[in-house]
Amino acid sequence: MRTHYCGTITSAQIDEEVTLYGWVDRRRDHGGVIFLDMRDREGIVQVVFDPDTEEHFQRADRVRSEYVLEIKGRVRARSDATINPNMLTGEIEILGKKLEILNSAATPPFQLDQHIEVGEDVRLKYRYIDLRRPEMLEKLKLRSRVTSSIRRFMDENGFLDIETPILTKATPEGARDYLVPSRTHEGKFFALPQSPQLFKQLLMVSGMDRYYQIAKCFRDEDLRADRQPEFTQIDIETSFMNDQQIMAITERMIQGLFKEVLDVDLGDFPHMPYAEAMSRFGSDKPDLRIPLELVDVDDLMRQVDFKVFNGPANDAKGRVAALKVTGGAQISRKQIDGYTKFVSIYGAKGLAWIKINDITAGIEGLQSPILKFMPEDIITQMMARLAVTDGDIVFFGADKTSIVNEALGALRVKVGEDQGLIKGDWAPLWVVDFPMFEENSEGNLTSLHHPFTAPACSPEALEKNPEQALSIAYDMVLNGTELGGGSVRIHQADMQQAVFRVLGISDEEAQEKFGFLLDALKYGAPPHGGLAFGLDRLVMLMTGAKSIRDVIAFPKTQSAACVMTDAPGLADNKQLRELNIRLREKPKAE
Amino acid sequence: MRTHYCGTITSAQIDEEVTLYGWVDRRRDHGGVIFLDMRDREGIVQVVFDPDTEEHFQRADRVRSEYVLEIKGRVRARSDATINPNMLTGEIEILGKKLEILNSAATPPFQLDQHIEVGEDVRLKYRYIDLRRPEMLEKLKLRSRVTSSIRRFMDENGFLDIETPILTKATPEGARDYLVPSRTHEGKFFALPQSPQLFKQLLMVSGMDRYYQIAKCFRDEDLRADRQPEFTQIDIETSFMNDQQIMAITERMIQGLFKEVLDVDLGDFPHMPYAEAMSRFGSDKPDLRIPLELVDVDDLMRQVDFKVFNGPANDAKGRVAALKVTGGAQISRKQIDGYTKFVSIYGAKGLAWIKINDITAGIEGLQSPILKFMPEDIITQMMARLAVTDGDIVFFGADKTSIVNEALGALRVKVGEDQGLIKGDWAPLWVVDFPMFEENSEGNLTSLHHPFTAPACSPEALEKNPEQALSIAYDMVLNGTELGGGSVRIHQADMQQAVFRVLGISDEEAQEKFGFLLDALKYGAPPHGGLAFGLDRLVMLMTGAKSIRDVIAFPKTQSAACVMTDAPGLADNKQLRELNIRLREKPKAE
Repeated sequence: MRTHYCGTITSAQIDEEVTLYGWVDRRRDHGGVIFLDMRDREGIVQVVFDPDTEEHFQRADRVRSEYVLEIKGRVRARSDATINPNMLTGEIEILGKKLEILNSAATPPFQLDQHIEVGEDVRLKYRYIDLRRPEMLEKLKLRSRVTSSIRRFMDENGFLDIETPILTKATPEGARDYLVPSRTHEGKFFALPQSPQLFKQLLMVSGMDRYYQIAKCFRDEDLRADRQPEFTQIDIETSFMNDQQIMAITERMIQGLFKEVLDVDLGDFPHMPYAEAMSRFGSDKPDLRIPLELVDVDDLMRQVDFKVFNGPANDAKGRVAALKVTGGAQISRKQIDGYTKFVSIYGAKGLAWIKINDITAGIEGLQSPILKFMPEDIITQMMARLAVTDGDIVFFGADKTSIVNEALGALRVKVGEDQGLIKGDWAPLWVVDFPMFEENSEGNLTSLHHPFTAPACSPEALEKNPEQALSIAYDMVLNGTELGGGSVRIHQADMQQAVFRVLGISDEEAQEKFGFLLDALKYGAPPHGGLAFGLDRLVMLMTGAKSIRDVIAFPKTQSAACVMTDAPGLADNKQLRELNIRLREKPKAE
Repeated sequence: MRTHYCGTITSAQIDEEVTLYGWVDRRRDHGGVIFLDMRDREGIVQVVFDPDTEEHFQRADRVRSEYVLEIKGRVRARSDATINPNMLTGEIEILGKKLEILNSAATPPFQLDQHIEVGEDVRLKYRYIDLRRPEMLEKLKLRSRVTSSIRRFMDENGFLDIETPILTKATPEGARDYLVPSRTHEGKFFALPQSPQLFKQLLMVSGMDRYYQIAKCFRDEDLRADRQPEFTQIDIETSFMNDQQIMAITERMIQGLFKEVLDVDLGDFPHMPYAEAMSRFGSDKPDLRIPLELVDVDDLMRQVDFKVFNGPANDAKGRVAALKVTGGAQISRKQIDGYTKFVSIYGAKGLAWIKINDITAGIEGLQSPILKFMPEDIITQMMARLAVTDGDIVFFGADKTSIVNEALGALRVKVGEDQGLIKGDWAPLWVVDFPMFEENSEGNLTSLHHPFTAPACSPEALEKNPEQALSIAYDMVLNGTELGGGSVRIHQADMQQAVFRVLGISDEEAQEKFGFLLDALKYGAPPHGGLAFGLDRLVMLMTGAKSIRDVIAFPKTQSAACVMTDAPGLADNKQLRELNIRLREKPKAE
């Protein structure tokens, strides 16, 4: 048996005999002596074989990169000249006495330190080699520590770990379902769950009181950089707790996690209403590390004779907002052109700006293509409101509120990053008081969260003024990323039906799709609520990973394929026949 | 917030003010006072409302079974006459002061204490009500404690919890795969994993060293009482450990689990070779609590002039074995007829027997329809070998070895249970030294475990004498149930290819199906091995559940459906079109 992991041996083990297992990271021949860097999960240690140990020296001479070895030897101090302060094991080395080659290795398709050059496709095809890289190993190790810490917290707080089905029924959660044809029920299909939402609510109706699960969820969507067809959710539900209590306990969980795994003290999380977040940051997941804010100037712009501004300022669904960047006057015209292009992604038709060169010089001290459209007193009032000083720049957004928020919200983050304005490492917060509904592109109301979210009003008030209704929902945000979200759920059938009516879901449709939930609400459903965290995103944030694929052992590509196993693959006709399906033939090209 | 769970209040809380949340288990009206049995996850407590608290008394009067309440009150001792020693909370009651109705409940489709009468289909449809039964709650609570205990053990022993994909590639593990049509890769399908076998091996090649996962697995098989389409596996893999070390660490895990959760000391697990288990118990998962054994009598039966016996006795693939049941002479002819029918399920064509009435009387003291076919000295030798005493019965099996083993192995268990012979509560063991291959019905060799299992011999010896080859595999057996099984895996490509050749898998086919594994074995694969436990079965054993459905929160029926959510369901044409499939039309009836 191994006595130590390679990476853990220090001066404390000097003169000890050790047995190691691992891979040859590097082999060097130097002055008649062979140096092997032995690597395992915990790091690297240097092993030296000299010609005294003839048989083993010869074997050491034969080994190549990625050979798998068993090594026995004695730990000794390195000479002062050869100490490597960059390695944890850099003060010692192993004087090798025995070497067994447990397996040889063909020349790998890429060297671990050349992973950047080969491109991600090769790395994904040989994932088992790519995962040997210490950075990758560390990410998966940290992920394991994260789930372990969360599970311990959940256990200690009386949450039961309960599994919910993977083969289940389609429920319209917005995204496309993965379907699984049933062999025994001809022409019917299971759906893979987009979340365990309904099951966890039913567990509350069952009296489980406190439930959690680290659950696989599935969405058949077109993938973006931070999405995967299967992803993992830390899923939590509890009975008899209100929103404040649910937020408090999950906040403690995340605080404890960061303390334990990263030794970071997150402090108390501020609470911010959705309306305030949108108004000040143009986002419902603001990155509070960036000290930039949107400021409303609609009242001023109503008075200017410039349609681009006074149009949205006079429109109830429009907004004119300013974003002051301290010290931003140095931003070049070329950069501003870049930002103008950037905000156009979000639908903004332009990006007005004013540079403040000398505030004491009044309008003469300002520089901007739009000054000519504005009365001087308006400019003066605006500059006062924004509390500008010399060297600042102010950007403007003027459009439909949603476009201004998205464009300036994104610009705020981009400029903050570009200008190095980010303050501190971690900025958590709760966003609360979400609207129940939002208008979709067809002008119909849809749930902002999901239709099981409890409103903060009576069924009557909800149906009378659905646009005004707030929900008892909450999102946990960290550094501009939504870590998790949840809500108190509807626990009474009449409220659930009122919500369905607002959403234009007929009683019949509701009964067909959610009949079992509506039934359950009638048979003694307790008040309940919960939360779900995206584990992949949480681990990305904690490890600083740039891609979600870096925190998943065997991820899919952006076209939802696994290039290592070559999945998905063909099915044979016998299988398809058993499943009562056939492939759709393509219409022939003419 | 609640101060206590209902079921946890004892005399220690007398005079304390408590706040409870829960369900009305029962409501009684007695001498002008209202008694409510309040139930939550942890049990039941009695609450008394008297007319002094007018408003709350009236509410208490209105509540019915399964109403959800918040109750505040003071704990007081019951009078001696009303103490209920059958309840954990039976020495106290709560004098109710406040009662809030949090939700009402319609009359449930069945009363919790009438679950037997309504049948399983109704219970599964209203699963959220059935799960309120304390027996069901207890099973899921214990399941949660089991996974928690196992995870803690794994953490403490340096195993990393790593998730493997659910959307993956079909690998022929014997059973039928569930398929998932891919939208983005036309005409192709993912398969749901039957186990994470190949991924966990690749994690070892990646250097993860120690992996575990509590993983969902899927098999689209016709369901038996103890099967579910999705089931859960405690999946373990480790590098650089041999079979003895893997067995030792997983044995410690199971010992620790039983100690922690059931306060049971399982002791050390004996090891038994497969050949011995088959010979003595007719089973590779013998229930050692049953003190009955099969005894070979082939040598004796070769000499008798009775074809039923001398045929199999003279056949290299046949077996004649005897099963002595101490005290079994009292088994009636009718019971024997029942056992004869029972063994016929396993292909036995009959069930010969001898009752020992008076051993001192020689052949006269025996009773049996088959005595006439046997020479007296053979009978005498046989009785001596079996060490019979008065009152015993001996059953015989004579057929192909596999039929004798299955039939007498099953009979051994059945008679053991019927005759109340089971000794002790828990009998664990390891079965080891399995053959590498077995013959299937077409006479071809197939893997007894799976084709990645390491043989205990060289590739050359394996190919020369595959029928003789043993594997480095091990099964953990408890009370006649296979709790888990595993093996040391093949870590060298040439050995893996030798196994594929024995199995008649061409190089081309092997490359197509397992190319990524064969590649991985070439690039520095460490020696590795592991084990997988069936979590559902483990929890069944630990809770004494009769059905696998009792240890799963939302199980499927035997036709692989969920009667609560009505899954599987219909898919609309748009979805099917996107997935590039269509339903197969039935051939029209004529």
